Amino acid sequence: MKVRLSGTRRSAPASVTMGSDDSPPFKHSLILGIDPSLRGTGFGVIRLEKPHPVALAHGTITCPPSWLLSRCLLKIATELRAVILQYQPTACAVEGLFFAQNLQTALIMGEARGASLVAAAEGGLEIFEISPRKMKLAIVGYGGAQKSAVGQMVKRMLQLVDLPEPDAADALGLALTLAQETGRHSLAAPKQL
Amino acid sequence: MKVRLSGTRRSAPASVTMGSDDSPPFKHSLILGIDPSLRGTGFGVIRLEKPHPVALAHGTITCPPSWLLSRCLLKIATELRAVILQYQPTACAVEGLFFAQNLQTALIMGEARGASLVAAAEGGLEIFEISPRKMKLAIVGYGGAQKSAVGQMVKRMLQLVDLPEPDAADALGLALTLAQETGRHSLAAPKQL
Repeated sequence: MKVRLSGTRRSAPASVTMGSDDSPPFKHSLILGIDPSLRGTGFGVIRLEKPHPVALAHGTITCPPSWLLSRCLLKIATELRAVILQYQPTACAVEGLFFAQNLQTALIMGEARGASLVAAAEGGLEIFEISPRKMKLAIVGYGGAQKSAVGQMVKRMLQLVDLPEPDAADALGLALTLAQETGRHSLAAPKQL
Repeated sequence: MKVRLSGTRRSAPASVTMGSDDSPPFKHSLILGIDPSLRGTGFGVIRLEKPHPVALAHGTITCPPSWLLSRCLLKIATELRAVILQYQPTACAVEGLFFAQNLQTALIMGEARGASLVAAAEGGLEIFEISPRKMKLAIVGYGGAQKSAVGQMVKRMLQLVDLPEPDAADALGLALTLAQETGRHSLAAPKQL
């Protein structure tokens, strides 16, 4: 697992502040985003604060192709547990409603999600599902945005020094989207898992 | 090998003994079978002994439809962990290569499998995948057998007093099949996960 610490510089876009005067404050201030995948699970922890949210940690849990499925799943659960223990997030945004090429892909994706959700549920987090399209729409402004565009926007919103890895960027994007959706009382609230 | 309905009540079918004189003994004597499903995960622990294998425990981990996905997955992992801790199996047979109706079904099935595999991997078990068809072929003698036929045969092979619940019967059947396949140096050895 590679964890990068954040650097902070300037102010964040208005869309990820913690709520305006006419909406109650979002009750979670520490959010974990997870983009589950068997060989490269992205994760990111953000803290909501002013003037802009801060990334406490982000990284990718990688598993070589030679590893057995069960070893990968155990690593995903174990490393996410360690992140949760260290940063104590209270809410979790997990990628959901993706497009799978076939049943086998969906099954493997489900296994990675299952391992991730066990770790999050053990930690007592409130878990929400956010679709990739919704995340891209919230972060980039276009539901069909490229991964690289998500990375660039996440870097800007969190004032990161370096561009995050693609899977980690997606995870941070999910966490930012959850804060935004829930904080602004969106009509289409994220689905709780 | 086909296990015959006319098998004796006192002795186990030859196919599930621990190995004959011309084959090395199967190194695992305690096997956990898991039939993962979000709302009803079957499990069963068998001990290979003579004259016939013995079921140490079996049951179904049920989750009401009202429960959130993450709560179900946590319950599956937690209860399987407790079973592993109590009975200390060293090998695990998990149902695999099923037929899913659609991507959503495959995803949910994957999530339940992921939670199960995390528990088994944490326990240090050697994990093998066995298809429903292979299990039915090994237990009933027909790959397209009904669930009820599996239950009846499992009850007979393990000399159970009562018919096990359907999901628990499948799990016991998977464990018995693993013992049989591995013990006899099958040409089509179970896939390790």
